[in-house]
Amino acid sequence: MPDPFKNIRFVLVRPSRPGNIGAAARAMKNMGLSDLTLVRPVDPLGSDSYTMAYGAHDLLENATVFKTLRRAVTRCPYVVGTTARTHKGYGKPAPLMQVAPKILEVARKQRVAILFGPESSGLANEEIALCQTLVTIPTGGAHTSLNLAQAVMVVAYELMRASVSKIGTAPRPHREIADTNQRERFYDELKELLTLIGFMKGTQGKHILADLRRIFGRSDLDGRELRILRGIVRQARWAMTHR
Amino acid sequence: MPDPFKNIRFVLVRPSRPGNIGAAARAMKNMGLSDLTLVRPVDPLGSDSYTMAYGAHDLLENATVFKTLRRAVTRCPYVVGTTARTHKGYGKPAPLMQVAPKILEVARKQRVAILFGPESSGLANEEIALCQTLVTIPTGGAHTSLNLAQAVMVVAYELMRASVSKIGTAPRPHREIADTNQRERFYDELKELLTLIGFMKGTQGKHILADLRRIFGRSDLDGRELRILRGIVRQARWAMTHR
Repeated sequence: MPDPFKNIRFVLVRPSRPGNIGAAARAMKNMGLSDLTLVRPVDPLGSDSYTMAYGAHDLLENATVFKTLRRAVTRCPYVVGTTARTHKGYGKPAPLMQVAPKILEVARKQRVAILFGPESSGLANEEIALCQTLVTIPTGGAHTSLNLAQAVMVVAYELMRASVSKIGTAPRPHREIADTNQRERFYDELKELLTLIGFMKGTQGKHILADLRRIFGRSDLDGRELRILRGIVRQARWAMTHR
Repeated sequence: MPDPFKNIRFVLVRPSRPGNIGAAARAMKNMGLSDLTLVRPVDPLGSDSYTMAYGAHDLLENATVFKTLRRAVTRCPYVVGTTARTHKGYGKPAPLMQVAPKILEVARKQRVAILFGPESSGLANEEIALCQTLVTIPTGGAHTSLNLAQAVMVVAYELMRASVSKIGTAPRPHREIADTNQRERFYDELKELLTLIGFMKGTQGKHILADLRRIFGRSDLDGRELRILRGIVRQARWAMTHR
């Protein structure tokens, strides 16, 4: 888990559906976040909340509850508000992916609060006023209103994503590509088999081999896979000549 | 809305919670996707589903329901499975952000199906076998199990994100991927041949087939290539039985 994540607090402001609180907790835990903070919430420990918080009950139980947003963000120097719309006097909110690297940078040293407004109305003007930055989740369609827990998920995912791409590259599973000699031997054996079954007649044969090379070339065969393919070719040959 | 989105089908396989179906519909609509397809779902039009599908009732009402996954993906040449774990014989799934550009590239010309397994168990092995590519949503924590609708949201968001960042980059040459039925027939014929030559004995045989599916899956075979491979298999079979 990247270290800055410990300094990132998600604040749900006046959430009204317990299921959303639980789902938000799960989403946060999925992405390695743990500081869930609630301002005047509906009962966060209700049964819907518990069900949706599958695997993340600890976040629910450790959630801090505040009576005012001001208190919830007091120790967080950087306050980011999420919103789907433009607020008078605040300009257009920045797209999430633009702000995520900055959030991580700040969170290396200082606490960051990210605010999510109530389901029905979003953050109120006096809540917006507490924010240094407003971000929006870009949407691809005309329907720009995200479910609260979905918005939490996307922000958490984008932060994780930014932290990974900051470290360097996404952890790619490394495939050890088989060596050229093995591969060429496989093509030789395949060619013999194709000749044996009568598939290499005329000039067409050459093209077929080129096709097969291209097909298997795209596969980036590893050593084990190549052994399997060569095993099949040899077994087919043996079966043909020992009947 | 980016055009390739019309060619992207989200397939919920045996979803068991109506609320998740509704939330998935809303998430899709948020990101500009519209083809919601269901395989043996719980009632998709239940009240929980409707509530969670706020603003996206049209997606629920237009959702196509299939009895088998095979039918749901028949007209989708490129089938992508989402999974949180490594499946025996399929290697590590690729991180979502790595595969998203490829999905968009294919979806410019052909239909793509993205599969989401049931809440409790994920995709079954025979469902995984239908996929060319497996992707996983990278998580930042130890809790890797995402809620179904949250997984749908993250995939939809990443596709939207990739489509936005793609604008400006040159389109890569498109390969026409062969259709799912042809591909499955090839695997059936290959299996028969392997049985005939004695390569499918015992439990090892099953693994070999998974290996071969993975190898050819990575190749993105087009129709012509698939005809060549099927031709070889049939000719080998003929040669073996007519000696």
